[in-house]
Amino acid sequence: MIRFNNDYHRSAHPAILQALADTAGDSFPGYGVDPWCEKAADEIKKHLDCPDAAVHFLMGGTQVNMTAIAAALRPYQSAVSAVTGHIHAHETGAVEHTGHKIVTLSSPDGKLTAEQAARVGEAYRTSPIREHITQPKLIYISFPTEYGTLYSLRELTELRAACDRYDMYLFVDGARMGYGLAAGDVTLADMARLADMFTIGGTKCGALFGEALVITNAALKPDFRSYIKQNGGMLAKGWLLGLQFYTLFKDGLYFDICRQAVELALQLKAAFAARGIPSYLDSPTNQQFVILTHEQMEALEGKYTFEPDHDVDEDRMCVRFCTSWATTPQEVRALMSDIEKL
Amino acid sequence: MIRFNNDYHRSAHPAILQALADTAGDSFPGYGVDPWCEKAADEIKKHLDCPDAAVHFLMGGTQVNMTAIAAALRPYQSAVSAVTGHIHAHETGAVEHTGHKIVTLSSPDGKLTAEQAARVGEAYRTSPIREHITQPKLIYISFPTEYGTLYSLRELTELRAACDRYDMYLFVDGARMGYGLAAGDVTLADMARLADMFTIGGTKCGALFGEALVITNAALKPDFRSYIKQNGGMLAKGWLLGLQFYTLFKDGLYFDICRQAVELALQLKAAFAARGIPSYLDSPTNQQFVILTHEQMEALEGKYTFEPDHDVDEDRMCVRFCTSWATTPQEVRALMSDIEKL
Amino acid sequence: MIRFNNDYHRSAHPAILQALADTAGDSFPGYGVDPWCEKAADEIKKHLDCPDAAVHFLMGGTQVNMTAIAAALRPYQSAVSAVTGHIHAHETGAVEHTGHKIVTLSSPDGKLTAEQAARVGEAYRTSPIREHITQPKLIYISFPTEYGTLYSLRELTELRAACDRYDMYLFVDGARMGYGLAAGDVTLADMARLADMFTIGGTKCGALFGEALVITNAALKPDFRSYIKQNGGMLAKGWLLGLQFYTLFKDGLYFDICRQAVELALQLKAAFAARGIPSYLDSPTNQQFVILTHEQMEALEGKYTFEPDHDVDEDRMCVRFCTSWATTPQEVRALMSDIEKL
Amino acid sequence: MIRFNNDYHRSAHPAILQALADTAGDSFPGYGVDPWCEKAADEIKKHLDCPDAAVHFLMGGTQVNMTAIAAALRPYQSAVSAVTGHIHAHETGAVEHTGHKIVTLSSPDGKLTAEQAARVGEAYRTSPIREHITQPKLIYISFPTEYGTLYSLRELTELRAACDRYDMYLFVDGARMGYGLAAGDVTLADMARLADMFTIGGTKCGALFGEALVITNAALKPDFRSYIKQNGGMLAKGWLLGLQFYTLFKDGLYFDICRQAVELALQLKAAFAARGIPSYLDSPTNQQFVILTHEQMEALEGKYTFEPDHDVDEDRMCVRFCTSWATTPQEVRALMSDIEKL
Repeated sequence: MIRFNNDYHRSAHPAILQALADTAGDSFPGYGVDPWCEKAADEIKKHLDCPDAAVHFLMGGTQVNMTAIAAALRPYQSAVSAVTGHIHAHETGAVEHTGHKIVTLSSPDGKLTAEQAARVGEAYRTSPIREHITQPKLIYISFPTEYGTLYSLRELTELRAACDRYDMYLFVDGARMGYGLAAGDVTLADMARLADMFTIGGTKCGALFGEALVITNAALKPDFRSYIKQNGGMLAKGWLLGLQFYTLFKDGLYFDICRQAVELALQLKAAFAARGIPSYLDSPTNQQFVILTHEQMEALEGKYTFEPDHDVDEDRMCVRFCTSWATTPQEVRALMSDIEKL
Repeated sequence: MIRFNNDYHRSAHPAILQALADTAGDSFPGYGVDPWCEKAADEIKKHLDCPDAAVHFLMGGTQVNMTAIAAALRPYQSAVSAVTGHIHAHETGAVEHTGHKIVTLSSPDGKLTAEQAARVGEAYRTSPIREHITQPKLIYISFPTEYGTLYSLRELTELRAACDRYDMYLFVDGARMGYGLAAGDVTLADMARLADMFTIGGTKCGALFGEALVITNAALKPDFRSYIKQNGGMLAKGWLLGLQFYTLFKDGLYFDICRQAVELALQLKAAFAARGIPSYLDSPTNQQFVILTHEQMEALEGKYTFEPDHDVDEDRMCVRFCTSWATTPQEVRALMSDIEKL
Repeated sequence: MIRFNNDYHRSAHPAILQALADTAGDSFPGYGVDPWCEKAADEIKKHLDCPDAAVHFLMGGTQVNMTAIAAALRPYQSAVSAVTGHIHAHETGAVEHTGHKIVTLSSPDGKLTAEQAARVGEAYRTSPIREHITQPKLIYISFPTEYGTLYSLRELTELRAACDRYDMYLFVDGARMGYGLAAGDVTLADMARLADMFTIGGTKCGALFGEALVITNAALKPDFRSYIKQNGGMLAKGWLLGLQFYTLFKDGLYFDICRQAVELALQLKAAFAARGIPSYLDSPTNQQFVILTHEQMEALEGKYTFEPDHDVDEDRMCVRFCTSWATTPQEVRALMSDIEKL
Repeated sequence: MIRFNNDYHRSAHPAILQALADTAGDSFPGYGVDPWCEKAADEIKKHLDCPDAAVHFLMGGTQVNMTAIAAALRPYQSAVSAVTGHIHAHETGAVEHTGHKIVTLSSPDGKLTAEQAARVGEAYRTSPIREHITQPKLIYISFPTEYGTLYSLRELTELRAACDRYDMYLFVDGARMGYGLAAGDVTLADMARLADMFTIGGTKCGALFGEALVITNAALKPDFRSYIKQNGGMLAKGWLLGLQFYTLFKDGLYFDICRQAVELALQLKAAFAARGIPSYLDSPTNQQFVILTHEQMEALEGKYTFEPDHDVDEDRMCVRFCTSWATTPQEVRALMSDIEKL
């Protein structure tokens, strides 16, 4: 079985397992104050052009999202997200569990526009009943989105401007950051300049687990480790996180493996297009959502895994094909050849 | 100035102020375990045909909503509301502050349909990723709605059936219950039979303040007073609530004053219609939302208060005219005569 | 039956009921933005020597405590209280329900010392595991305490200094503020100078209900009305609160009635002492806790109400005698004469 | 440097790293519904004598504690813990952050007695002001405690009886369960019979990370995965947890390595005693707290790590020596010989 169902079905890139093996005999201080976390933060900061950035390592995506948002907001403030945003759609109300409303905005492609953000800010600013509604204080976007789409540098810059105008934070969920960096015109330094906080996902980009959180806004830095601990996100053997991110960032492995995964995904995208199979949305990243007939699905199911997303009509379904560091060119060629035969 | 801006701009019906004066020299036990609360609950229960109902008295609407919902839900469970629902639109995230997501559904008239409720229940039941989303466990409706519209007995019965099918609670926010009872075919006994919990609003129906909460579902009754206290809703001089509700219910005053307010509102409605002024929605209750030109608004503003709701276009606005126990037939006749002249 | 069981068994001082009657025909804006709230705040501020103080009016004690503390603290910060403090002992975990730990300190007399506060602050500042514990950020004291004892101006000044040294807020629960002001050497201007926030209780000092919250620390003022609404504490007919506090403060009624209640309580205290009945603690305020034998309790129970507090030993109980604006000199004389006969 | 400072300074037992290497090329379903989690649960259940037990795997100790407690309690219910309990003393208010008070009881040795638990239950049951206080609903104990002390089977059985009498849950934090099982007369089957929920710690007992949660009370099982996800504890690559616990339990490795660590700790204990160095408490497990003079500390510090706990007086400190799977007999012999020379 060749797997395209998601980007987290295998343990970790061999370099990470090797690093684990290499440090098996060593002892370290606990809770993330160890040399590996420090070195990993240093490696990441080389890309940020922001020497004062704070870098923390947490275990998972829901965890880092809820921790960062709970730390940033006052009780009466809310996060703003596309209806498709992960914090709204797939995290079991974790943000609300910490006490905050998520204001949702419709979106045809999983992205929020600067105009939408500004409209929310303006509505609050001019509301005659401000104390009866929550203050939209944090714009949450995912980069890439849950549907693989991507913000351009210009779009991000405009979002930043809207946030500045209305005194809102910009928080970027980068669970698949590596694929976004590989596919668009945005760099980590742009992220550090434009976002108040953003994550760099490990779990879906080659690590066993782990998400880096970068905080550039000075107001959000104090005592952040207390929030991590309070939300159950402080790993006792924290160096396991540092070691993984150091391994991914020291020689650019993170960028390389994500770039290759995107290239392979774009080959699949071209193959679907050549065969006349429509995309659900135009994704430049490692997730490709295409619309297959049930017949086409059956033709592929014996040999490949892929993930059903939603029914389009009685005959057709939108499904996801996903590449990752673990996807090989051979696997993609095999699928391309079978797509051609559909 | 003649006031139609809302139904809570005057203190209380004279009978309530008289009751306060009559008991000024008496002493009572605190925290709602007093003869007046008991008598008030008894009077209310005469209308419920549900001898085991629990009746509690809280101070305000947001407070009773957040307390009841927090008491009913487990942490991973959510409330379902129309986007216009008070808990979503006007309570500063109070429900989320207690940890729960509100799942919002669009609604052209402020009402939820049984079909919508069932769709939400079915989506959860059949979800392959149930643990990644919240369980929709409580259907929140307002009776009448924030736009004055009303559920029929048939609609409520269908909602109940949908709740039964998907193991959901039906919670009715009756901040304006009296006007709803006066305007439709639903009785308090129907409410007790169809809802798991519902409120009977005092604040907007003749009291100084206070909302009665009726709980009919046995699973929601235990230790409810602990929830009231924890959420800051237990009045030290609790008999002030009991006394007011006793006064409103003992001789049917609550029903009488709300019926008259509805009748007066319907006279206004007819006057607007006769003048060719469109309603925003077809409301049978004490709130009438009509669409006025700015010129028409100016013509009325010197003599009457009414509440702007939203801009319809550059020239027109949707505004609310509201009657209450304090509205007199003379006041309504004056406005009707001025509507005619518009 | 003559009542000494608590200070909230009667509705309100006649002047308040009169004010209610006088305004029964008037209409006001809702939610606390009305002339009465403004005038009440102005009257209170005359005593504060702090023109920028913010004054809000909420309905009850638990409510104002939980709202103020939730507004002041970040999620990882805690409140510090004596074990006997109302927020810890009698509010059903309301503060914890908003997400915050209460760090409790033992206290023989219901008071916290500056040294205790400093010790807590120092322990956090020097902790090697700060992120594993909460930051003690708010010192909660009650004035007078739950046992009627009182802080002197010197003690409060020392507490303030400790708070300054360790960057902590000083929050004073003044549910019985009037009695405290009457009994000690602290003025409202002292409170405004020394506390970051404090309440002025109405419920137990002559009002039907209501607590004023004074905020002097600029950092705690922004958007405070949003917190009130979110916590269910915003009364629709908010002028009912303003009207009561205006009535209590405009001619010093608040101070007068509390002073008289304290004087009467001290007469009782003297009578108990004269009879050789021990006090539980030396209280200079309207609550007197004395230790009675069961025989003595029985001798008084037919004619007077008083509140059992706790068993001292098999034969004796600590009980509370409480005076209020509603207590008359005749009632106190009657009791004194019966104490003499014990 | 020879390390006795804690039991989590090394990555994992070699068998676990080997298992990771062996599965590096395999793909698995995400979120803990994979064959390894299933097999691990099966292995654990072989020891429980409780076929219906639910077994979940979470990443860390604070996380599993807060998730389990938040899932078990209604909002007005509280957890009961010794003041030294981890949830109270070292988890940054995580339990309170989920909305629940922790009722703390003093304890000379880190243990709660059945009598203490019963007293708390009785106080609530007989309280005349029940709605003003939280309901103590869950007794939290750590096994072994934070000071290495241990409950006997008899003590646990008595605690269970107290819980039954007062309708309370018994929750056992087994972050160091393996050492407790090795040191006392309690088995996992006893745990399953006596506790409603308990954890089996991996992090401090040989795993990279991970805590198993066993739920035996049927009322606590439904939808537990939703709580895990909501609290950020659901690992995307969940099989990493299952794989580790399977490796630890399949051939009894967990029991073996903890038994050896305890044996080595007892040799240290004997050596300290022989040298006349007092224990802080009599610990039968892998943590030994002894009281050293500063001179003695200095004599050992160059060669060994150990953890300061608290100052005893000006000259002496209580410090912790900890063994683990990574501690070798040689390391212990070296330290013993140096203890002798103190």
